[in-house]
Amino acid sequence: MAIIVQKYGGSSLADAERIKHVARRIGACRERGDDIVVVVSAMGDTTDELIDLAHRMSGSPDPREMDILLSTGELVSCTLVTMALRALGHDAISLSGAQAGIRTDGSHSRARIVELDTQRVRGELEQGRIVIIAGFQGVTGEMDVTTLGRGGSDTTAVALAAAVQAERCEIYTDVEGIYTADPRLVPQARRLDEVGYEEMLELASYGAKMHPRAIELGAAYDVPILVASSFVEGPGTLIHKGANMEARNRVRGVAADRNVAKITLAGVPDRPGIAAALFEPLAQEGISVDTIVQNASLERTTDLTFTVARTDLKRAVEVVEPLSRSIGSQGIVTAERLAKVSVVGTGMQNAPGYAASMFKALYEAGINIEMITTSEIRITCLIDEEQVPNAVQALHAAFRLEEEE
Amino acid sequence: MAIIVQKYGGSSLADAERIKHVARRIGACRERGDDIVVVVSAMGDTTDELIDLAHRMSGSPDPREMDILLSTGELVSCTLVTMALRALGHDAISLSGAQAGIRTDGSHSRARIVELDTQRVRGELEQGRIVIIAGFQGVTGEMDVTTLGRGGSDTTAVALAAAVQAERCEIYTDVEGIYTADPRLVPQARRLDEVGYEEMLELASYGAKMHPRAIELGAAYDVPILVASSFVEGPGTLIHKGANMEARNRVRGVAADRNVAKITLAGVPDRPGIAAALFEPLAQEGISVDTIVQNASLERTTDLTFTVARTDLKRAVEVVEPLSRSIGSQGIVTAERLAKVSVVGTGMQNAPGYAASMFKALYEAGINIEMITTSEIRITCLIDEEQVPNAVQALHAAFRLEEEE
Repeated sequence: MAIIVQKYGGSSLADAERIKHVARRIGACRERGDDIVVVVSAMGDTTDELIDLAHRMSGSPDPREMDILLSTGELVSCTLVTMALRALGHDAISLSGAQAGIRTDGSHSRARIVELDTQRVRGELEQGRIVIIAGFQGVTGEMDVTTLGRGGSDTTAVALAAAVQAERCEIYTDVEGIYTADPRLVPQARRLDEVGYEEMLELASYGAKMHPRAIELGAAYDVPILVASSFVEGPGTLIHKGANMEARNRVRGVAADRNVAKITLAGVPDRPGIAAALFEPLAQEGISVDTIVQNASLERTTDLTFTVARTDLKRAVEVVEPLSRSIGSQGIVTAERLAKVSVVGTGMQNAPGYAASMFKALYEAGINIEMITTSEIRITCLIDEEQVPNAVQALHAAFRLEEEE
Repeated sequence: MAIIVQKYGGSSLADAERIKHVARRIGACRERGDDIVVVVSAMGDTTDELIDLAHRMSGSPDPREMDILLSTGELVSCTLVTMALRALGHDAISLSGAQAGIRTDGSHSRARIVELDTQRVRGELEQGRIVIIAGFQGVTGEMDVTTLGRGGSDTTAVALAAAVQAERCEIYTDVEGIYTADPRLVPQARRLDEVGYEEMLELASYGAKMHPRAIELGAAYDVPILVASSFVEGPGTLIHKGANMEARNRVRGVAADRNVAKITLAGVPDRPGIAAALFEPLAQEGISVDTIVQNASLERTTDLTFTVARTDLKRAVEVVEPLSRSIGSQGIVTAERLAKVSVVGTGMQNAPGYAASMFKALYEAGINIEMITTSEIRITCLIDEEQVPNAVQALHAAFRLEEEE
């Protein structure tokens, strides 16, 4: 008998009716004979509401308290799903992250899983129970509750799937799979049947609805991940290794990310060690720095520009400002209303024509490019946020993504 | 340095502003130099909302799941109070019931505290912290979350006060203390400066806003309990041993309880063992039976009438119905719209005139008495629920409770 791990996101659990619908889905799956482990997010906007409450208490809520606060959202949804399953006649039990054996480091609000003890989960499965686990949370060795950060429930699900050697991890959400572009921006966008981990990683980083950490974990442990809708029946998109064993050499999707802000340090002395002095403290604060551009200098000063998630901008400026003064920079300029658009596909690296096609498509759509970054399977342009719909539509059309592969 | 335990109820924590107000109160108390342990209830109507959600999942939600669900309400409020205190510059930490060392038996939804390990609480106090504890919850030896039942946060507070040998347990609520009668029913009602445990127990059982278990615990461990408002400054009412060392020989208050339902078993065979067969299963279900009346019998059958909390009626009928059939009773009749009114005061036992005065006052107000029960310090009449305001006003006036003692 195979073990299936399913994860249901907040929109699938937004109210009592949806929770009961999810319970019926889980029950139907159970009746097909597999052992089922379910990971749930908090209901609907619960997490945002709790964060809002916390920020009304304090400008900078204590991270330990914040984690306990946020962890309650998933406890609520996992008990409700369990009750609904039991009402349908299924034996089910809810487990907190701690009870499910999810041990993390002590980095509150962005903890990393260090160990996953599946003894309790396996024991409950052996008793014939469906096990419903609160996602997004774990516990330190000192039994302090931690949270894994946004998208953490995906990470919980994939980590559990790896640890119990599940046949598949199914991520149920409010979209029917992974698309060639956001269907709200591009009506012609097409659902992909399958996608490789690396491609998905780039699509997820730049807009598609799944947490990159979860995909990395899936890739590392070779867990097939199905992304599908909890609202409508459909095949979804399977993320797996086979999907890109042979590089296809074509663009598979267009992604956009509006969570981008830019910080420029003007007139930075051009001497060694400056970059380290700047980016080490940001890393220590857990702020990921994305694109970094440093202008060539004639006058022994340089302008240093980098991007961070817009949600990190305030904290990033707090870290950078004193450093900026101490290294004698002329000052900090920030820009918030930026976005990234990316084209993603394996094999693009060996076909330089893709970059040229992308720049041309954006140029013809009248869109200015502020910065460019690339990876092996992605080309990304930083543009004005307002231009995102234009840019995504132009790129989708330019690479003819509406056509079947 | 004395330890003060404070408890804040749901209405004192109903929204962000009230939580911040509570934090300022706690902070001010801390600045007067005492060590502070705070027990909090869930915000506002959170518990009722969670119960409602659970009942939308299942007609009879699993008690284990229900306890985990309900325990989240207090986790939310204790983290928010902690954040608000830290924002005010106070060192504070939240603890769950489990972390606060509150060990209970395994009776989900009505667990009893079996052990209170204060090591963690004392350790945090020694580090100069204000300790904010989630009320109403504990944990079994197997680390399963339990709840103590309605009013459980009062019990948590008094138990903690006893365990840490606090100078006083302060219960903050939305009333300014204990009154001679409900001020909403009797405008002339007067706040009592002090009241004995036994008197308070009767008043609490029959309407005043405090859980009888908490008062019993206070009496057992001799914990002085101050009941006061969290909204307005005022002396409140001190519940303590000294308050009734000398029986005062007068009525101290009028209480009313609308949470009453009556069950009558008609035509019960009048033979030994029937009462035990009936009331043992009710006790096993945790349903408290109050007044019991059995009519004298001529025909070897009898009518057996008893009252339960109205909220227990459905469960009680479920227990009694099969028994009723098996003992050959003619059937069950229930009545929901009943209430109890009581006059309470030490020393009443030795002054039989009180009962006569009570019956006369009710008679003159045109109120029919369905049943009568008495304790050492209380006389209670079961009446029609609609007559409660009339009855309380009539009794308050008859015993001249508006006059200073």
